Amino acid sequence: MALVTLGNSEFDRDTAVSRRAPGVYDAHLSAGWTIIQAVNGGYLLALMGRALGEALPHPDPLSVTAHYLTASVPGPAVIRTEVVRTGRTLSTGTARLLQTDEDGNEIERLRVLASYGDLDALPDDVRTTAKPPAIPPYEHCLGADDAPGEGTAIPGSTAITERLDLRLDPATAGWAVGAPSGKGEMRAWFGLADGRDPDPLSLLLTVDALPPTAFEMGLLGWVPTVELTAHIRHRPAPGPLRVAITTRNLAGGFLEEDAEVWDSQDRLVAQSRQLARAVLQG
Amino acid sequence: MALVTLGNSEFDRDTAVSRRAPGVYDAHLSAGWTIIQAVNGGYLLALMGRALGEALPHPDPLSVTAHYLTASVPGPAVIRTEVVRTGRTLSTGTARLLQTDEDGNEIERLRVLASYGDLDALPDDVRTTAKPPAIPPYEHCLGADDAPGEGTAIPGSTAITERLDLRLDPATAGWAVGAPSGKGEMRAWFGLADGRDPDPLSLLLTVDALPPTAFEMGLLGWVPTVELTAHIRHRPAPGPLRVAITTRNLAGGFLEEDAEVWDSQDRLVAQSRQLARAVLQG
Repeated sequence: MALVTLGNSEFDRDTAVSRRAPGVYDAHLSAGWTIIQAVNGGYLLALMGRALGEALPHPDPLSVTAHYLTASVPGPAVIRTEVVRTGRTLSTGTARLLQTDEDGNEIERLRVLASYGDLDALPDDVRTTAKPPAIPPYEHCLGADDAPGEGTAIPGSTAITERLDLRLDPATAGWAVGAPSGKGEMRAWFGLADGRDPDPLSLLLTVDALPPTAFEMGLLGWVPTVELTAHIRHRPAPGPLRVAITTRNLAGGFLEEDAEVWDSQDRLVAQSRQLARAVLQG
Repeated sequence: MALVTLGNSEFDRDTAVSRRAPGVYDAHLSAGWTIIQAVNGGYLLALMGRALGEALPHPDPLSVTAHYLTASVPGPAVIRTEVVRTGRTLSTGTARLLQTDEDGNEIERLRVLASYGDLDALPDDVRTTAKPPAIPPYEHCLGADDAPGEGTAIPGSTAITERLDLRLDPATAGWAVGAPSGKGEMRAWFGLADGRDPDPLSLLLTVDALPPTAFEMGLLGWVPTVELTAHIRHRPAPGPLRVAITTRNLAGGFLEEDAEVWDSQDRLVAQSRQLARAVLQG
């Protein structure tokens, strides 16, 4: 069994995979990345991204799509990958995350389809017209320690918040004090609590690690992700990231969340869109 | 063999599939939907969407991702589908588009992962904050007949343009007269030339049926799609559609195209993002 891990950080430890057979990897879904009852979707995406990076000849995720089928639970899991095509600059593969139920049946949690390449081999031109988000400096943003007393924010487990160094733009944190802005926006500074620098894999976590825009839109209830597609466009520079998420189409019981991740060099390093269910209550 | 077609329109005829065995469908890639040398990606997506709609218990695409692996050619093809999961309101499946080469080997053209539901069963709430695009009235937009003489626009086949009733916003048509705006934008009125009304499947064509934003950004050369993810959010009303495409992150040899499709009732009926290769020349 070849243990594949890149370091001692919590993220690397908890997204490590162990190759059991060609294309088959054992993993352990850590309880440390849960929010309320759910294993965080970005953590799962990063874990699948780790396995695919091992299975495919190209190292870096460029475009990754996950469909979230059933709720993952902390505990053992297996990832079964398939190589779809290998080319000179791109490879494509699929991955299935499976967990065994009490009767011994394998239940599929996620199905992923992704194309990988080599970010370091991309040409260096930048004609990005998008601009970094307007977010106050880190020191003026709100972290978990700034949250008001118990019971005002999120019920249930907040284990993932201990893994992250997340600082919310106060303009998108009104929900935490019962005063949501009504706008489909969420912005934050993002880092890992243990100081690990970002990399292409951790960006897969980053695109789904903020509170839902639904909180600012005053929606009660959870907003489960149906599908998420992330584009990793550049290796992130060391240092803190800025994440800006926008929702513009809440309708028919669904909403989209568009996320942009900017690094310390003002590069737009990742973009994602997810489709989530948003059941309006009352 | 059960022929599945919904009408006499060109779109329905050319996206028809014929069930050969459970989950296996024969199809014919029509030369009528080619641009330059390529079979249009939206046409291929719609064809795959047709097959998945047959294979899955839910009728309508909600989220569809395609990875474009090798270049499709007009002629026979087979679509092999897999049901990943069926739920009460959503089903998920995959589809492979395959064509046989001269040596009799099956070559995969597209790999698709999608979740389907029932658009007519969705609640009717609309809290969309996005606005329809600012595009001049249809009569003031430019159709194929308005194109200047030969040689100024697109070399090679323009067969698809005969299938579509496409009218470009003049502000995004400068490329056709050698005066690209420099902005990553493309907007048009969209219909099918034979008058067929839009439906959820034809929206899969619509999101990839306009000229590339790259033309307006002055990029030479083709801009092949690596991956495209479309969200179908509402059954479109009859009548013309408005399509607005934006590129904000041209960098590192790739660009994204974000498309929005608005129907005659000012509903945002579809959103998509594609990742395409953009090799800068000169």
